[in-house]
Amino acid sequence: MGLELYLDLLSQPCRSIYIFARSNNIPFEFKHVELFKGLTCAFYQAITFKKPYLGLPTSPDSVAWFCCANGTSYPAKLEASITAGPSNSEGAGKVSLLKKVPALKDGDFTLAECTAILLYLSRKYNTPDHWYPSDIQKRARVDEYLSWHHANIRANAPKTMWIKVLIPLFTGQPLPSEKLQEVMEGLSTSLKQFEERFLQDKAFIIGSEISLADLVAIVELMQPVGVGCDIFEDRPRLREWRRRVEDAVGKELFFQAHEMILNIKELSNIQIDPQLKEQLAPVLMKMLK
Amino acid sequence: MGLELYLDLLSQPCRSIYIFARSNNIPFEFKHVELFKGLTCAFYQAITFKKPYLGLPTSPDSVAWFCCANGTSYPAKLEASITAGPSNSEGAGKVSLLKKVPALKDGDFTLAECTAILLYLSRKYNTPDHWYPSDIQKRARVDEYLSWHHANIRANAPKTMWIKVLIPLFTGQPLPSEKLQEVMEGLSTSLKQFEERFLQDKAFIIGSEISLADLVAIVELMQPVGVGCDIFEDRPRLREWRRRVEDAVGKELFFQAHEMILNIKELSNIQIDPQLKEQLAPVLMKMLK
Repeated sequence: MGLELYLDLLSQPCRSIYIFARSNNIPFEFKHVELFKGLTCAFYQAITFKKPYLGLPTSPDSVAWFCCANGTSYPAKLEASITAGPSNSEGAGKVSLLKKVPALKDGDFTLAECTAILLYLSRKYNTPDHWYPSDIQKRARVDEYLSWHHANIRANAPKTMWIKVLIPLFTGQPLPSEKLQEVMEGLSTSLKQFEERFLQDKAFIIGSEISLADLVAIVELMQPVGVGCDIFEDRPRLREWRRRVEDAVGKELFFQAHEMILNIKELSNIQIDPQLKEQLAPVLMKMLK
Repeated sequence: MGLELYLDLLSQPCRSIYIFARSNNIPFEFKHVELFKGLTCAFYQAITFKKPYLGLPTSPDSVAWFCCANGTSYPAKLEASITAGPSNSEGAGKVSLLKKVPALKDGDFTLAECTAILLYLSRKYNTPDHWYPSDIQKRARVDEYLSWHHANIRANAPKTMWIKVLIPLFTGQPLPSEKLQEVMEGLSTSLKQFEERFLQDKAFIIGSEISLADLVAIVELMQPVGVGCDIFEDRPRLREWRRRVEDAVGKELFFQAHEMILNIKELSNIQIDPQLKEQLAPVLMKMLK
């Protein structure tokens, strides 16, 4: 049994793994996990109506993955229905100890957490050195970014999607604009640090070549773009860096991985199951805190 | 010029680096950074009065480090006074691009972020394999924990200190008990995952030997203990793991590194400069959100 990757390309860590594996020609079976069952089914249909969606196999999993993917416990009632449900019996819930996407399965070995999966793939498939340089100082720079990322870019950028799309979808009401402004201010502070302290005047974070650090950063920063907060617009240095990252991994692959998130606004037209609404609305609100 | 580590042992990431360097006999110059200038000076005196404090050199830096160490921007007024101040001219502010502790300086090379520093030290000084195993799957387990840590244990445990000690100290008022209860609930969820999904029935996170994952976890979990929230009390499996970690690094070193945090309650008796109070209270409240 070969390498299996459990991914949903709506999730930014999943996209970084997808791009990394594809651009390095790592053979894997794409196990599609739907972060919100039903919701994304309809979403796929909407997208597919205009253009076939990659033709990847879909094996519906559970709505609870959405909460888990964001580090939040899901309601016990949901957990029971998932555990009992037949679709999960061989699904990703068994794969990842953390019940999170992304998840990796390589024979009997399973692994969660984006950074851990990227590093595992780089080692197992001996990918080109620039992704995680053997030079001890350059490698430390990648580690430094990957660690800083969590409490900064990762903590701020995804909130734009919750505010602009998900919370209105589940609660039926838009959030006050101050909330978005507060999140955008936090994100701006992180972006300023990113430009001044990590990117500086270099082509990529560690210098002239792309590394895992750039990849983990770019997928997160595309999340606000998808919901209409184009953070690259007034930031020429950041925009140029994005263009270089796109070129480095290949524009076609880059946009293929981001197709769903760049069409996320279409989610607004989708009808959500009332019970699901009731269960997820408070979880989403808590995540935003 | 040899290795310099800029640390304050009140900070949990600093403690993990201190313990790692000391237990592996890595030679370094301890550059003491005071997360709250003045405040910790008095604190040291209080502690020293009873017992000499390790005899480590102290070179006062700035209060702003406290905010930075917690990923929060400090007020512009403070930044100006720090930049102008003579004590910082050769201090850690110049060392770390992120103006954070812990920071490492190795010749011309500087590095921030706890995980990055630990990995750099393990590579440069070729520390025993168990800390970051060369076995690809065990190494991935360490990476998995180090990544999960950020949004779980690291996101929850330090808040106990802000609620029980720092915020009352700076605002002059205790926080409502619901706030502590909310934080303890979040921490309990993380601890449950830690026990069931990482520790399981093993001696350490990756099996029979200690790794960087255990070290990063234990220093964070000692923070609540210092402020009177003994999270080990009703958790025998966690308590046994803590005992094994203490034994693995040596009890003397373990308690030496934790001496300040285990006496943190004495901070409550210290007078804070009113201007400092005014500037830091809102920053602390924001961090708690």
